[in-house]
Amino acid sequence: MAIHKVIFDTDPGVDDAMALLFLHRSPEVDLVGVTTTFGNGTIDQTTRNALYLVERFGMNVPVARGAGRPLVGEPLDPPDFVHGQNALGNVPIPEDFQGNADPRPAHRFIIDMLRASPGEITIVAVGRMTNLALALREAPDIVGLVRQIVVMGGAFGIAGVQGNVTPAAEANILGDPEAADEITAVDWPLTFVGLDVTQKTFMPTDYLAALATDGGEAGRFIWDVSRFYEAFHHEGGVPSIYVHDSSAVAYLLRPGLYETRSGAIRVSTAGVTRGMTVQKPDGTRYAPCPWDGRPSHRVCTSVDAEGLRELYRTTIVG
Amino acid sequence: MAIHKVIFDTDPGVDDAMALLFLHRSPEVDLVGVTTTFGNGTIDQTTRNALYLVERFGMNVPVARGAGRPLVGEPLDPPDFVHGQNALGNVPIPEDFQGNADPRPAHRFIIDMLRASPGEITIVAVGRMTNLALALREAPDIVGLVRQIVVMGGAFGIAGVQGNVTPAAEANILGDPEAADEITAVDWPLTFVGLDVTQKTFMPTDYLAALATDGGEAGRFIWDVSRFYEAFHHEGGVPSIYVHDSSAVAYLLRPGLYETRSGAIRVSTAGVTRGMTVQKPDGTRYAPCPWDGRPSHRVCTSVDAEGLRELYRTTIVG
Repeated sequence: MAIHKVIFDTDPGVDDAMALLFLHRSPEVDLVGVTTTFGNGTIDQTTRNALYLVERFGMNVPVARGAGRPLVGEPLDPPDFVHGQNALGNVPIPEDFQGNADPRPAHRFIIDMLRASPGEITIVAVGRMTNLALALREAPDIVGLVRQIVVMGGAFGIAGVQGNVTPAAEANILGDPEAADEITAVDWPLTFVGLDVTQKTFMPTDYLAALATDGGEAGRFIWDVSRFYEAFHHEGGVPSIYVHDSSAVAYLLRPGLYETRSGAIRVSTAGVTRGMTVQKPDGTRYAPCPWDGRPSHRVCTSVDAEGLRELYRTTIVG
Repeated sequence: MAIHKVIFDTDPGVDDAMALLFLHRSPEVDLVGVTTTFGNGTIDQTTRNALYLVERFGMNVPVARGAGRPLVGEPLDPPDFVHGQNALGNVPIPEDFQGNADPRPAHRFIIDMLRASPGEITIVAVGRMTNLALALREAPDIVGLVRQIVVMGGAFGIAGVQGNVTPAAEANILGDPEAADEITAVDWPLTFVGLDVTQKTFMPTDYLAALATDGGEAGRFIWDVSRFYEAFHHEGGVPSIYVHDSSAVAYLLRPGLYETRSGAIRVSTAGVTRGMTVQKPDGTRYAPCPWDGRPSHRVCTSVDAEGLRELYRTTIVG
């Protein structure tokens, strides 16, 4: 069995929590660190949430606090209508909870870990790309040190899928478009798991209820944490929850569940499309354009959603 | 039989010429004017080509010379690798040919015609949107005077279709994005027939050969003018020619050949996505964004290509 050493770069976040438990419960994953970003909540909230989840589920891994703002401009308002007031679906954290974060900022933690284990560590990045961009700016050598990066983010218009914050932009990318454009500029093994597939992957209520019944403490927590999030989906006419961040984990564990397309990627940082991700598929012919000279990266174009659900269920239930 | 009074705003252009003959031959069309834009050639070339086509085929309509440059910046280089050195597929025009253009600039011609026949005239716009934007700037009252505007332009990512000049942008829109964004800002009956459907509509060589045999002078000209254009498609691995501009005419004549989606449209004028068209479909929920407060316009999402070919054939053959 292949073992993936993983740093989880995350902004918990309801679906982040679900993905973190997916990683923690997978026998194929050696979780070596959690780094936090602003996004689904403030950096204070997401760091506290990450520390709480790691302690509650006995993960015994360091949590390094990351950037609290994007490379340029101000953070978007946290989407409390999606993830609740505390960014964790309004599941309360004990008031006296105090976690201990790693003393290093997230980007420095990432650099240190990659340098200590060249070629071994995968980064699953499901928040803003800020920590990754800061790490890359400070230590360009990490391009050759990372085993793989799997990003949950973007909307590539594969099957008419558009953004979820604006018609052009997905939240993780719109939250720091400059960072996303920087991490796509370099030639490291990078795959985007975007709305094109995550909005094709649902977890219905009865599926989540079965996890609560069969999945022990993790399953019960997944049920609790997803109630507010599910209500948000229902209000929007979506019959069951989209599977965003856990899709990045599923891609890591079972890439065969996905079809991908390879090509250079640019992220719009200007005008009405700010935060939009656009790929130039390999082999297509265009006039000279801003995609030229950029390395190819993979974008997921389709998913075996039933396969994902089965993998998630068996991993949580054990 | 409904008769459509049409101004054809065009940059001939191989497929423009094919669309002009489609309009001319249709018993349902009363062509009341041709206005020219830069694009497939310089404004000198496209105006000369339009004058030549109108005279050669006895159309007896005024040709008004339009803008030679976009609202902002410089024109793109004419795509002579698509439309030939003379923008008419290298079909020679007699050297001594001299046409007589209407004395008015195109945008003034459009304004005058719309004011003279309120609610009666449809504009089929298949070049840059510059003339329309200039008319709108000078005479905002035309918003209430036009019967309908059908634009060939844009790429809305409906079925994964991307731009044709860059991965983000289609040529007519990239050629003057500011103009395109201005014409989508106002509430007039506007439909985009973009690459989403024109790249799903082909005319194979044997189809064009049959037009040459059965279609009289028009059919023979369509064959001649499309040889260079077809070779360009073949070189790019496209087995037969895309039907761009004639698709706008087909939409006018038989809207039932198309499915459409309604929603506000923005055109990117900045950064890597410059020239990209993005629709916010009616009924979708987003954070406050630059689409808010804009009127809905239609975008074609699918086409009955066989129906189009049959309509075109019977119209040309008569």
